[in-house]
Amino acid sequence: MSDTDLRYTELSEVGMGISVKVNSTIFHDESDFQTIDIIDTPALGKMLILDGLVMTSDKDEFFYHEMISHIPMNSHPAPRNILVIGGGDGGTVREVLKHECVQKVVLCEIDGTVVECCKKYLPEIAGKLDDPKVEIQIRDGVEYISTQKEQFDIILIDSTDPLGPGVGLFTEEFYNNVKNALKKGGIMVAQSESPFADQKEMKLMYALLKKVFPIVRTYVGPMPTYPGGYWSWAFCSESVEPLSYIDAERVDKISLTSKLYNKEIHKSVFALPNFVKKLLEEAK
Amino acid sequence: MSDTDLRYTELSEVGMGISVKVNSTIFHDESDFQTIDIIDTPALGKMLILDGLVMTSDKDEFFYHEMISHIPMNSHPAPRNILVIGGGDGGTVREVLKHECVQKVVLCEIDGTVVECCKKYLPEIAGKLDDPKVEIQIRDGVEYISTQKEQFDIILIDSTDPLGPGVGLFTEEFYNNVKNALKKGGIMVAQSESPFADQKEMKLMYALLKKVFPIVRTYVGPMPTYPGGYWSWAFCSESVEPLSYIDAERVDKISLTSKLYNKEIHKSVFALPNFVKKLLEEAK
Repeated sequence: MSDTDLRYTELSEVGMGISVKVNSTIFHDESDFQTIDIIDTPALGKMLILDGLVMTSDKDEFFYHEMISHIPMNSHPAPRNILVIGGGDGGTVREVLKHECVQKVVLCEIDGTVVECCKKYLPEIAGKLDDPKVEIQIRDGVEYISTQKEQFDIILIDSTDPLGPGVGLFTEEFYNNVKNALKKGGIMVAQSESPFADQKEMKLMYALLKKVFPIVRTYVGPMPTYPGGYWSWAFCSESVEPLSYIDAERVDKISLTSKLYNKEIHKSVFALPNFVKKLLEEAK
Repeated sequence: MSDTDLRYTELSEVGMGISVKVNSTIFHDESDFQTIDIIDTPALGKMLILDGLVMTSDKDEFFYHEMISHIPMNSHPAPRNILVIGGGDGGTVREVLKHECVQKVVLCEIDGTVVECCKKYLPEIAGKLDDPKVEIQIRDGVEYISTQKEQFDIILIDSTDPLGPGVGLFTEEFYNNVKNALKKGGIMVAQSESPFADQKEMKLMYALLKKVFPIVRTYVGPMPTYPGGYWSWAFCSESVEPLSYIDAERVDKISLTSKLYNKEIHKSVFALPNFVKKLLEEAK
């Protein structure tokens, strides 16, 4: 089989995406919720693919996981109770646990098969899921969040795209329940798609967020294996403006072990290109 | 032919890259220097491809052209004489001409066929190449720069990768000649490859730049159709530190017609991820 030219190619609806040479398929399963693949590649190491869309890869996962976690975590003076919805690969939980003030991280992931196969095949990403501070809830985040009131300092929505099992995580009702599950001074951050490749989806999402949260801001960063190589996150709160508080001591500590994150990055990610500002203004 | 599944796929040496659906091939030629293709795509409009590598596309060219030009232009109090080496597609010249203080832009491009086919097929990018302020020199930038002494306020190296016809633009001798061609207070900016996908090439390039210029800084930004979706530029000068001067009036004026560039972007692009800082420190 040494001459077989195996490739994984992911094209968006409009016909653009990434292509990656593949060494081998490591895992393939049809779970109750989605198709799960883990492939091994020369360029990016192992990659997790759900329903034909790249979720994470050994080599570029740090861009996404550092951005979704450290920006909100270091915007809160003492984040102790954290909820991650989605994020079954464990990368976001791993980053959150770097903050010593954290007492508990609940990971609410709908698909137990994702958690199990990531623990087995992506140990550098999922390796902290067995930490005693972590509580794993294998259930629908939509249903779980509706039972939580003022429980969490930070809630991170580490979801798939607004398709398949992730669709319920992009509704006004869900965001209202997230708001109610936050403690006073709490922050939600949700991945909010590609400002280059997913403009329609971004607008719909921000229109809903603006109905629920008084403060809805956006930050951006590179993410090589996602559409457009460029990603966005929504920073939402009832009272906290990003950059109004930055925990300088934790910023310095976290940046010692980060590949991406540091003080200058924290301050710069809220600078938005004109076309992104325009898109967000149009979202209503 | 309506059912033909045409795709353009560009894989780097390690086996990662972009894939784009293709409507049709518009232009194909083997010039004296390289293979030139222009293709039409549903996702990105028309794309210019040289020797099998994407140079620019209608839809994402603004990321690259705004970044390479406005950052140095607005770091100079009165940029009047500008040299662009490479950049035969005309996108960089178009952005430079938005600065009314500019008196002359020399475009030195080795391959006349690139200029001609971009004028014909990519008019939104190349449309300003006929402006009376523009002087087009179809010749080798390496040879041209060696004849210029203290002529330019800003020199932009809008080159291909360090391969094929671009290879001479990545040498110590070339950078020395660029330094000598700058007026006092002048700035050179050169595209400096992908911090994610081209780390080896970046290190070699910065090692050379540090031998020549006392001030060598780096800025970064998204560029969807380039490897890793994430690009870097070297900001080099004998005396000018980036952000030591920003022409506030021109920044505001330019940002009115820019898709990407604005004041906050200008200040934020020099914030580098830890892995990029490390890579640059190792370049010697």
